Amino acid sequence: MQRYFVPKENMTDTKVTITGEDVKHIARVMRMKIGDMIICSNSIQAARCKLEEITDNEVTANIVEWIEEQKELPVAVTIAQGLPKGDKLDYIIQKGTELGANSFWPFAAARSVVKWNAQKGQKKIERLEKIAKEAAEQSHRTQVPTVQLPTSFQDLLKESSHYDIKLIAYEESAKTGEKKNLAKTLNTVQSGQTILLVIGPEGGLSEHEVMALEEQGFVSCGLGPRILRTETAALYFLAAVSYHTELM
Amino acid sequence: MQRYFVPKENMTDTKVTITGEDVKHIARVMRMKIGDMIICSNSIQAARCKLEEITDNEVTANIVEWIEEQKELPVAVTIAQGLPKGDKLDYIIQKGTELGANSFWPFAAARSVVKWNAQKGQKKIERLEKIAKEAAEQSHRTQVPTVQLPTSFQDLLKESSHYDIKLIAYEESAKTGEKKNLAKTLNTVQSGQTILLVIGPEGGLSEHEVMALEEQGFVSCGLGPRILRTETAALYFLAAVSYHTELM
Repeated sequence: MQRYFVPKENMTDTKVTITGEDVKHIARVMRMKIGDMIICSNSIQAARCKLEEITDNEVTANIVEWIEEQKELPVAVTIAQGLPKGDKLDYIIQKGTELGANSFWPFAAARSVVKWNAQKGQKKIERLEKIAKEAAEQSHRTQVPTVQLPTSFQDLLKESSHYDIKLIAYEESAKTGEKKNLAKTLNTVQSGQTILLVIGPEGGLSEHEVMALEEQGFVSCGLGPRILRTETAALYFLAAVSYHTELM
Repeated sequence: MQRYFVPKENMTDTKVTITGEDVKHIARVMRMKIGDMIICSNSIQAARCKLEEITDNEVTANIVEWIEEQKELPVAVTIAQGLPKGDKLDYIIQKGTELGANSFWPFAAARSVVKWNAQKGQKKIERLEKIAKEAAEQSHRTQVPTVQLPTSFQDLLKESSHYDIKLIAYEESAKTGEKKNLAKTLNTVQSGQTILLVIGPEGGLSEHEVMALEEQGFVSCGLGPRILRTETAALYFLAAVSYHTELM
């Protein structure tokens, strides 16, 4: 059943009001009619809803039943991604959303080639938020991950204190065969905790960045003996977190 | 250090002969000179080698030392992928190679929209083999995964008997909340065993296909509670196998 995310204020105990691009999607793309069923989520809970009225700029639906579902990872994973080249960030956000990430935090790493400027930044974020919303709908999630505006490495360091668990995906760990830290961490992680994983851009993190992160209490962990591209590291990590916390 | 794969017959105990496109890569792209070091792998073992001679169509290097490395998954995973649309197969093979797949086996699933014809097929496979080779070099693997020509579903069924462990990534399992089968399987898997994972195309596997596979001893397993796109399922599975067998 097609899933749509709506702002909290558009969802009462009995009714949902859908506005914006989803109206066109329901009416034109899916060609739905009055009485058809959809699933709506306000990012806290989802409900099966029956379409009641379809106009050019608004769709209203009646909530038939609330759905008990556990689609979200038991831990909230934030992917702090050193700004990569090209469309890799799109890809990390689409796949990372399917795999359960809670939020994405791009940052300007020492070896990031790409630079974002303030004006363009906002536009890009809106595009990335759209990618996250569509991936969350497609993968039947209850929440849409948030996408932050890129920050500096210094701000990343400062803000990192808010997280329960702080990890670095460090390719040197893979080369030196570091194996234990990821499993050790996931063995101790508790439901409801927050995890921040820092991933470098194409050139990797600089030694200085890794030292600064470790001084802040970050732990370097290898993601297996093979060297992963920057856009693959987040996916490996999220799949491992899902496997360990949801399937084992 | 840059890694190149060479045919077994091009690698003696002391010397390596590199031909084909890698010659251009060494001489023009990397601009290497006599005396520079590279890593060569014959898909069984890798060695550090010193460039001895560079001509227009051949590079020879002396083996300085053989490398003891364990870059390959302890189990040989074959991804049987229902032919997906567009360039998704490129992507599955690039990322699946980084994540340690042993081979890729595309097949024409009931819901595969794409059809391959014999002539075009061979060309496409050569392209996919190139993607696998480059990804294996980049991720520092010892082996290049093989890419088979697409087969019919019936041939997939027949040939599947050669594998120790046979699994289906079945999205209905995710919807019905099946959680245990993947971990149960990985708890029993032994080093050196072969695993065949069947993944449907965009529309998923048909019920008939799933029944036929289960009759052949395949086990359906969920890959977490979120619905993954067809190109994401293989990556989740390979990351989980790596995490369980290499890091835990």
